[in-house]
Amino acid sequence: MRKKLLISTGGGDAPGLNAVIFAVVTSATRKGWEVYGSRAGYGGLLDRDDLVRLIPEDVEGILSQGGTILGSTNKGNPFCKPVENLAGEIQIVDISDKILDNFNRMGFFCHIAVGGDGSLDIAHRFAQKGMPVIGVPKTIDNDLEATDRTFGFDTAVSTATDALDKLHSTAKSHDRVMVVEVMGRDSGWIALYSGISGGADIILIPEIPFKIESIYAKISDNELHNKHYSIVVVAEGARAEDGEVISKGQGEMGRSEVILGGVGEWVADQIRQRLKKDTRSLVLGHLQRGGSPTTFDRLLALRFGTAAVRLAEQGVFDHMVALASSTMTAVPIAEAIRHRKKVDLESDKVRTARDIGICLGD
Amino acid sequence: MRKKLLISTGGGDAPGLNAVIFAVVTSATRKGWEVYGSRAGYGGLLDRDDLVRLIPEDVEGILSQGGTILGSTNKGNPFCKPVENLAGEIQIVDISDKILDNFNRMGFFCHIAVGGDGSLDIAHRFAQKGMPVIGVPKTIDNDLEATDRTFGFDTAVSTATDALDKLHSTAKSHDRVMVVEVMGRDSGWIALYSGISGGADIILIPEIPFKIESIYAKISDNELHNKHYSIVVVAEGARAEDGEVISKGQGEMGRSEVILGGVGEWVADQIRQRLKKDTRSLVLGHLQRGGSPTTFDRLLALRFGTAAVRLAEQGVFDHMVALASSTMTAVPIAEAIRHRKKVDLESDKVRTARDIGICLGD
Amino acid sequence: MRKKLLISTGGGDAPGLNAVIFAVVTSATRKGWEVYGSRAGYGGLLDRDDLVRLIPEDVEGILSQGGTILGSTNKGNPFCKPVENLAGEIQIVDISDKILDNFNRMGFFCHIAVGGDGSLDIAHRFAQKGMPVIGVPKTIDNDLEATDRTFGFDTAVSTATDALDKLHSTAKSHDRVMVVEVMGRDSGWIALYSGISGGADIILIPEIPFKIESIYAKISDNELHNKHYSIVVVAEGARAEDGEVISKGQGEMGRSEVILGGVGEWVADQIRQRLKKDTRSLVLGHLQRGGSPTTFDRLLALRFGTAAVRLAEQGVFDHMVALASSTMTAVPIAEAIRHRKKVDLESDKVRTARDIGICLGD
Amino acid sequence: MRKKLLISTGGGDAPGLNAVIFAVVTSATRKGWEVYGSRAGYGGLLDRDDLVRLIPEDVEGILSQGGTILGSTNKGNPFCKPVENLAGEIQIVDISDKILDNFNRMGFFCHIAVGGDGSLDIAHRFAQKGMPVIGVPKTIDNDLEATDRTFGFDTAVSTATDALDKLHSTAKSHDRVMVVEVMGRDSGWIALYSGISGGADIILIPEIPFKIESIYAKISDNELHNKHYSIVVVAEGARAEDGEVISKGQGEMGRSEVILGGVGEWVADQIRQRLKKDTRSLVLGHLQRGGSPTTFDRLLALRFGTAAVRLAEQGVFDHMVALASSTMTAVPIAEAIRHRKKVDLESDKVRTARDIGICLGD
Repeated sequence: MRKKLLISTGGGDAPGLNAVIFAVVTSATRKGWEVYGSRAGYGGLLDRDDLVRLIPEDVEGILSQGGTILGSTNKGNPFCKPVENLAGEIQIVDISDKILDNFNRMGFFCHIAVGGDGSLDIAHRFAQKGMPVIGVPKTIDNDLEATDRTFGFDTAVSTATDALDKLHSTAKSHDRVMVVEVMGRDSGWIALYSGISGGADIILIPEIPFKIESIYAKISDNELHNKHYSIVVVAEGARAEDGEVISKGQGEMGRSEVILGGVGEWVADQIRQRLKKDTRSLVLGHLQRGGSPTTFDRLLALRFGTAAVRLAEQGVFDHMVALASSTMTAVPIAEAIRHRKKVDLESDKVRTARDIGICLGD
Repeated sequence: MRKKLLISTGGGDAPGLNAVIFAVVTSATRKGWEVYGSRAGYGGLLDRDDLVRLIPEDVEGILSQGGTILGSTNKGNPFCKPVENLAGEIQIVDISDKILDNFNRMGFFCHIAVGGDGSLDIAHRFAQKGMPVIGVPKTIDNDLEATDRTFGFDTAVSTATDALDKLHSTAKSHDRVMVVEVMGRDSGWIALYSGISGGADIILIPEIPFKIESIYAKISDNELHNKHYSIVVVAEGARAEDGEVISKGQGEMGRSEVILGGVGEWVADQIRQRLKKDTRSLVLGHLQRGGSPTTFDRLLALRFGTAAVRLAEQGVFDHMVALASSTMTAVPIAEAIRHRKKVDLESDKVRTARDIGICLGD
Repeated sequence: MRKKLLISTGGGDAPGLNAVIFAVVTSATRKGWEVYGSRAGYGGLLDRDDLVRLIPEDVEGILSQGGTILGSTNKGNPFCKPVENLAGEIQIVDISDKILDNFNRMGFFCHIAVGGDGSLDIAHRFAQKGMPVIGVPKTIDNDLEATDRTFGFDTAVSTATDALDKLHSTAKSHDRVMVVEVMGRDSGWIALYSGISGGADIILIPEIPFKIESIYAKISDNELHNKHYSIVVVAEGARAEDGEVISKGQGEMGRSEVILGGVGEWVADQIRQRLKKDTRSLVLGHLQRGGSPTTFDRLLALRFGTAAVRLAEQGVFDHMVALASSTMTAVPIAEAIRHRKKVDLESDKVRTARDIGICLGD
Repeated sequence: MRKKLLISTGGGDAPGLNAVIFAVVTSATRKGWEVYGSRAGYGGLLDRDDLVRLIPEDVEGILSQGGTILGSTNKGNPFCKPVENLAGEIQIVDISDKILDNFNRMGFFCHIAVGGDGSLDIAHRFAQKGMPVIGVPKTIDNDLEATDRTFGFDTAVSTATDALDKLHSTAKSHDRVMVVEVMGRDSGWIALYSGISGGADIILIPEIPFKIESIYAKISDNELHNKHYSIVVVAEGARAEDGEVISKGQGEMGRSEVILGGVGEWVADQIRQRLKKDTRSLVLGHLQRGGSPTTFDRLLALRFGTAAVRLAEQGVFDHMVALASSTMTAVPIAEAIRHRKKVDLESDKVRTARDIGICLGD
C-alpha cells in the first residue's frame, strides 16, 4: 500500500502557498506516495468533505497563483475550540484527540503543516501527542528568527514598492506629502525594504519609536533642496516616541485621540496641521497579500515544499524547514516559533537607508 | 522670427499628461515653432522662472512616464485670486489682465491648456478676453460628454482591475467580503469598468442609488452557490437610496452617522454587522492617478497633443480637442465643459454587467 | 427541458477567449439554459469526451486568464478533412454531415463559435446547412472590417509596448539600434499602435512598402540630433518597396537572399552593414498572444459573449457580434469575413505618427 | 576644498546600474564630497564633455529606472586601444598613462568603477598603476564567485519567468512545445531560476551537457500523463552531450549543421522533426536586460553603492564590494574576477528542480 501524506495550510494568506502545495504534491507523488490536502486547516480530519486527494494534474499551473487552493481560513485552535452546547452556551473543548485519532485511522504517515506561528504552535502540540508533523513557515512579515527568509515577503515588498513608484509622479506633480501605511505590526521589514527601494524620504518602523519633529525636519529640508514633495512609508506597528499615537480601535482606553485611520492617517494629520502641506494617506492593506508570487517567492516556496517532503522521507518530525544562507535546514518547531526577528538597527540595510539620506524617525 | 507656443497643465494628475506635452513639443518643433511650458498652471506668465523652453531633447522618454514635467498644481483661479495685502488681510483680486499682458508681451501666438473643467473654464474666459486658447481635456473620471474618451481613464481602470485581481485570491482563501472604493465622485465609470473586468460581484455607482438589502441578498446568494467570498466595488460617490449614507466630512450637517472612512468603509461595516461575514475595505485613492500610462492612454494623449497643434496651425481657438468615434474633432470649450457624462443605464456595458450576474445595488 | 447551448473556440490563441466563455456560461445559465463546451473546435461533436458541461462554478476566475479552457487547436476543416484510409493513403473527406447530425441529436438549439475568419467561414457553412450558428470574432491582429475592435489586440499591443519600454534603456545605454518584429502578416495595426506608444523612431507596416534609404536617413538624423540610439518596429508582413525582402522560408523561389530570421532580422542586417551601428533584432512572437487580458480586452470579450447569448435568445443566427462605435451589433457572418481592415493611411493615428516625427519607411 | 569622487559604469547593461549611481551620489554628497560621472567608461578622463558633475537633484527618480544615465558603452580597453594613424593604419596603443594623468590632475581621490569582469580587470590594472579604485560588480548572469548575488539578475529572471507565464496559456491552448532561449553563455543561473519558477518541464544549462533523447522522453512522458504541451528553457550556452550542437556563427568551422538561430532553435527543430509536435522557439534576448529593476535588485544595488562609498572613506582600494550572506564585504579585485560561479549540481535548487520532475537534460 502506498504511503499517505497530509498537507494543510493555516492562517493568513501569503503569495507562494500554492507553490508549496505544488512542490509537495509533485515531489511526494514521484516518491510513490499519495497526497491529501486538508481544507480549512484541520478541517479535513474532521469532515471527509474537507479532505481532498491531490495528484499532479490537480496542481498544474497553481505555482504562479496567489492564495491557496486549500483555503487557509483558520477554523480555530483544536486544543481549545469554542463549541455551542445544547443549552446554547459556548464551551471551550479540546478536539485534538479526535483529530489525532482520525489522522491515524486514515493511515497518514506524515502531516506537512504550512502556517504562521499560531499554526506551527498547534502543529508542535500535535507532534508532542504523537502526530508526525513537519512545519513550513509562512509569514509575509519575514519576522521569523529561525529562517533567513519566508515566502510572500518579496511579493509584498514588490507590491508596496510598485505602489510607491506610482505615487511618486502624483506626489511630485502636486507638491504633496504622501503617507503610505504598509504591513508590519511588530517588525518593520516590509516598510524598510519597500521604502528604500521605492525612494521614500522617511520610513517609520516599530523598532524605532519616531519623533514627529524629525519628520517635520526632513520634509522641510526637502523643501530647502527644492524637492517639494515627500514620500513617507509607515509600518502599521510604528509608534511615536512619546506614546502619543495609539492604535486603531483602542478608543475604549479613554484616550481622546483615537486613530481611526491607523498610524499612517495620524502621521498625515500631524504633517497637514503643522506644515500646512497638502498631505494624503493611503493604507495598502490586503493588496500586499495578493497577486502572483515573485520569482524569488516561487523558488523559495518550492524549495520549502520539496525540503519538507525530504524530511518526511527521512522521518525528521516536529521540525520546520528553514533557509540558512542558501541551504535548506531543519529546525525544531518549538525553537523556531520562539524568536521573532526584528530589524537589526546596526545592519547594512539600515545603514544604507541612512547613507542615502532617508529619515528613520529618530 | 519663429512662432512661439505656450503649453500648460492644470488641476489633478492624470497618466498621459506627459504624452500630451511630448506630442505638442515634438510636433510643434517640426513645424518650426518654439514651445514654452508654463509651470504651475499660469505661473509661467507671472514669473519667468516658471517659464521653460522645451525642445524635443527635453521630452525624450517622458511619453511613458506618469505625472507631468510641468507640475499641475493649480495656483488658483487668476480671475479671483486670494492675495494678502499689507495689512495682512486676504483680498480677492483679478490678475487676468496682467497674465494676458505678459502672454502678449512674450509674443505667444497660442496657448494649449491641458486641464479639467475648472482649468478649461478659466481658459475659455481668457479666450473671451482675446487669448488664442486651445483646450485639451483631462479628466481621469472620463465624465466629459464632449469627448468619447479622456486619457488617464484606461490607466486608472487598469490599476483598479489589477488591485481586484490581487484581492480575489486573498478573499477566496479566507471566505471574505472585500469592499474596494475607487474614484468617481459624480459618475461610476471607473467602478463599472474595473468592477466588470475585475470579476466583482457587486458594483455601486452614483448613477444608481443602492439598496443595502440588495447587497446582502447578492452575498447570501453567492454563499448558496458555494462561493463564500464576494468582491464589492464602490465608487466614492455612490449613495444609498434612502440617503442613509452621507459623505465624509459632512459631519457638520448634524447627522449622527458620519462616514469617517468613506462610503466603502460604511458598506463594509453594514455587511460585517448584518451578515457576520469577515469583511475588509480598501480605498485605492491616489494609486489610480499614478504609474505609467497604458498603451491606450498614451496613444490617445499623443493624438490629443498633435490635434491641438494642428488646431493652432489652423487658428481654431477657444476650442477643445475631442475624440468622436475614432476621429479627432474640435468642440467649443464653453459647450464642452457644460455637460458631464453619466453612465448610461441602458448601455450595453451596464447590460453586460447585469447579464453576467453582477448586482448593481438596485 | 432546458435549452442546450454549445460553445467552441477555434484557431489561434487570443487573450480574452476565456472571458467570452465566462460571459456565455454565466449569462446563458442565468437564462435557464445548459451550456456545453466543445473541446478542440468541433471535437465535442465527434467525441463525447471532448464535450464538457459548463456551469458558473467551472468558469469562476477564468475571466482574467489567458488561453482558452476549451483548447482552440484547430483539428482541421470538417468540410475537407484529411483522413488516412486502410491502405495508408490520405483521403479528403467531408464529415460535416456527421457533425451536424450529432449537433441535432444532442439537442443543441444554438452554437456560439468563437474564431478567426477560417473558423467563422466554417461556421457560416454549417449555418447554410441548417445549424443555428452565432459567431464571435477573434483576431489578435484587429484586422476585421466588420467590427471596430477585436479582443486580444489591446493585450498584444500592451505586451509589445512593454517590450519597447524595456528595450529603450538598453538601447540608449549602448547607443544601439534595436529592431523589434511584431505580429501583423497583412496589416500593421500592432506595429503602428505599439510603435507610437512605445516611442519608436521607425515603424514599418505592410500597408507602406518601405524604402531602406528612409530608414538610414532617420537613424542618421537621430545621430545629428544627439540621439545615438533608435528603435525600429517592424510588422512581420512589412516589405521593402523594391521587393528585395522576401519572406522567411521562400528560399525555394530561387532568390539568393532568403531571410532566415524574418524581415526584422533582414532590416537589422542592412542597418548594421550600411551604418556600422551596433544593431540587434528581436522577434516578440508568441509572447504577444499570452498573458492576462487587459481591462479593455476583458470588457470587450465579456460584451461579445453576452451579446452572442442575447442573439441566441432572439434567434438571430448566421450572424457575428460586432462593435460599432460603442454599441453591440450583429453582422451576417458571410459579409463579416469578406473584408479585412487595413491601416488607413489618412487616419488620425497615422498622422499622429508622422507629426511626432516617426518615419514610416516612405 | 571638497574631495572629488569619480564614478563610471562599463560594459553591458544591467537593471540596477542607476540605483548604484543614485546611492553613490547621495551618500557621497552627504559626506561633503563632490561626485563626477564619467560617460562612456573612461571617456570622462579623456574628454571634458564626457565628465559630468552629479548632485542629488540630478539622480532624483533614477533609482527605479533601467539603463544607466552614464552610458556604459565600452569605448575599448585603454591599455590596448586600436587607433587609426595618419596613414590610415590601425595601431594598438596604451592610453592608460594619459587617463591616470588626467585623473590625478583633476584631483579625484577615488574612482568607483561599476562593471563586469572585463571592466574590473581594467580597473585593477589602473589600481596597480596607482589609481585608487573601488569596484562594484555588475553581471546580470550572477556568475561571480566572489559575491553571493549581483544586481540585475533578479530582474532578468523575473522578465524570463513573466515570459514563461505568458507562454503557458498559449502552449496549453494549442498543445505545443515552446522552447525559450534565455541568457547564460557560461552558466545556467537565469535558465535554472526562471525555469523552476516559470513551471518549465525541461531546463538545459551549460553545466549539464544534454542528451536530446532525455528531452524527447520527458515530452512523451508528459503526453502519457495527459499534458499535451511542454515548456523548454534553454540557456544560450547549453550544449548537447555529443557535441552535435555548435554555436551560432561558427559555420566557418566546416560543420554542416550550423545553428543559425541559436541552440533554442536547434532544440526546437529536433523536437519538431522527431516528435512531430507543433514546436515554437523564442529568444528573449535584450528584454532581459531592460526594464525597471525589481525591489531585490534595487536594494542590492543601493547597498553596493553605499558600501563602495564607505570603502572610499576608509581608503580600502583595489577592492570590490561583495555580498556575503547578508553582509557587505570587500574582496580584492584581482581575486574576485578570477573565479566564475557555476551552478552547483548538488545544490538545493537543482535538487528542487529534479524533485518536482523537471528534466535537466541528463
